Amino acid sequence: MDLAANTLLSAGASPAMLHSSIESPDFTPHVHALYINVGTLSDNWLPAMKVAAELASRFNKPWILDPVAAGASGFRLKACLELISLKPSVIRGNASEIIALANASFGSSSTKGVDSSHDSTDAVEAAKSLANSSGAVVAVSGAVDFVTDGNRVVGVRNGVPMMQKITATGCAVTALIAAFAAVDPSHALEATASALAVFGVAGEIGMEKAAGPASLRMHLIDSLHGLDLTTVISRVKIDTL
Amino acid sequence: MDLAANTLLSAGASPAMLHSSIESPDFTPHVHALYINVGTLSDNWLPAMKVAAELASRFNKPWILDPVAAGASGFRLKACLELISLKPSVIRGNASEIIALANASFGSSSTKGVDSSHDSTDAVEAAKSLANSSGAVVAVSGAVDFVTDGNRVVGVRNGVPMMQKITATGCAVTALIAAFAAVDPSHALEATASALAVFGVAGEIGMEKAAGPASLRMHLIDSLHGLDLTTVISRVKIDTL
Amino acid sequence: MDLAANTLLSAGASPAMLHSSIESPDFTPHVHALYINVGTLSDNWLPAMKVAAELASRFNKPWILDPVAAGASGFRLKACLELISLKPSVIRGNASEIIALANASFGSSSTKGVDSSHDSTDAVEAAKSLANSSGAVVAVSGAVDFVTDGNRVVGVRNGVPMMQKITATGCAVTALIAAFAAVDPSHALEATASALAVFGVAGEIGMEKAAGPASLRMHLIDSLHGLDLTTVISRVKIDTL
Repeated sequence: MDLAANTLLSAGASPAMLHSSIESPDFTPHVHALYINVGTLSDNWLPAMKVAAELASRFNKPWILDPVAAGASGFRLKACLELISLKPSVIRGNASEIIALANASFGSSSTKGVDSSHDSTDAVEAAKSLANSSGAVVAVSGAVDFVTDGNRVVGVRNGVPMMQKITATGCAVTALIAAFAAVDPSHALEATASALAVFGVAGEIGMEKAAGPASLRMHLIDSLHGLDLTTVISRVKIDTL
Repeated sequence: MDLAANTLLSAGASPAMLHSSIESPDFTPHVHALYINVGTLSDNWLPAMKVAAELASRFNKPWILDPVAAGASGFRLKACLELISLKPSVIRGNASEIIALANASFGSSSTKGVDSSHDSTDAVEAAKSLANSSGAVVAVSGAVDFVTDGNRVVGVRNGVPMMQKITATGCAVTALIAAFAAVDPSHALEATASALAVFGVAGEIGMEKAAGPASLRMHLIDSLHGLDLTTVISRVKIDTL
Repeated sequence: MDLAANTLLSAGASPAMLHSSIESPDFTPHVHALYINVGTLSDNWLPAMKVAAELASRFNKPWILDPVAAGASGFRLKACLELISLKPSVIRGNASEIIALANASFGSSSTKGVDSSHDSTDAVEAAKSLANSSGAVVAVSGAVDFVTDGNRVVGVRNGVPMMQKITATGCAVTALIAAFAAVDPSHALEATASALAVFGVAGEIGMEKAAGPASLRMHLIDSLHGLDLTTVISRVKIDTL
């Protein structure tokens, strides 16, 4: 939550973190985008996530799902599938998570931690299948990030490997996707690819000064805050595949 | 919680973070100050907050409230008002939060995120009114911070704008107010103004080395830890208004 | 949780953070080690901790306990003792925590925050006694860290004092102990002493560049990520006592 909020503030967005379903009816109708992250899921948080997702859908607000460790347990997989039935605009995960969701069957033996044990390329077909079944834009993070609406597939080749050695960079870039989707909800694929590219560019610039994962984390956020359009345009690597 | 705890440790205080009402009867009577932050409020945390606040009042310990996003929902506003009825020593918020509490009416259309959408100057009258009705010292953070006991009004002109681009700086300075109030509970207005000024000075010194919000966060805490009295005295800008 | 996860990632481990007892039956049997930290204990988290600990024991996985602020309340002390009855491989705390557990009697007047108010040397006898009664390896952090299986006592003389001015360094080193114990569960004492030494070496190297607690935190993680075996061997200070 800390890194996601600092990412949003650095990018000029205005985050608020709410957990309680009691607050959603007052708050969710006024947001520009909703971001749900199942990272430390518990049974009393899930109903609040569903209430918020339903409200976002009803009030036509884009909502974005980060299905953290979707394959780690049957409970978590089921929770993610229930949330996906509430029509997220975008789902972003790593290859393991997207494959688990697309398969919708629990393969416990391949489960590791929240970091990914599959290449993102393995997950392109799974992502297309999930996009088609859910109606969401699906993004798979990895050495190359892939974004698809089920039909088009876009590759984003920004970022540096050390970003995977910082906890919550995935969660943070999903937050940034929500901010980008808030600006133009009708172009969720473009918003998602742009957010992934911009976050990756910030990581690349940060890496020039970093001596390890912790200083990269700092320089990445500083770089994100200082980015100008010229730099972004000269560095972004987005290809239609 | 992370930034607040690191702020307290850097300043020489000894923080402990407890959530459960079961622990309060054993723990709260031994603290020097209690800090309640409603940031990620949930319905099961609120009773624990009330138990801790009641114990602090009964044992004559200063307790400090950060009414994060007080106007974001009816539930949150009501929770803050209930906590305020338990006699906090100090309430610190941004202009939007203090105005929401003073109005004690829910104006959903003006609600943004946890960052402020009002100037602190707008909130001075609201702060005086809230101080008079609650008996607490009320502080409003902004470009200029205002502190009032309902009668006197003090302005603090330290800090740098980029501190608002770091999540939880408000929460952290409220923690520092609690530490300062612990030293001399009978001078809550002076403690509050001093904590705001010292935190702002740490931000100013940190800004000299910072390249963005994340490095400012680091340098701010480093500076707070390294502050000496001469530096503080030469830099503090507190005016009676 | 943030610092612990970043410590593990920097050291090459693969952390996942789960809170819910519903997930444990699916997830815990597949971990290489389980780490339970009672930092912000609440009554609904305790049952999940017990379920996870029981599963780890049943599936012969090492599990590591950080009894944060064990003496802060009767509830917390009882919770820690209940967890200890579920056979952790390693318990790591500061002197106050280990003494509270060994005495298993609540001395509220000596309770401070989560930082330690006893020297680690005071706690050696308490640690031996706790190791013997629990069957766990017990580590006491301090200016010198002590590790004992109830019979052997090992001292670790790495680290720098400023590490105590960063919140969660204790929690982070316990996470690292879990990662080391995962590699060779049958040598828990050696794993524990090595993890404490390596984390201390990372702190020493980090301190060479640090200007305060926040930059130390960053440089410590960077150093941990960059450590090579030659550096570790030349710097580690472990003595059999």
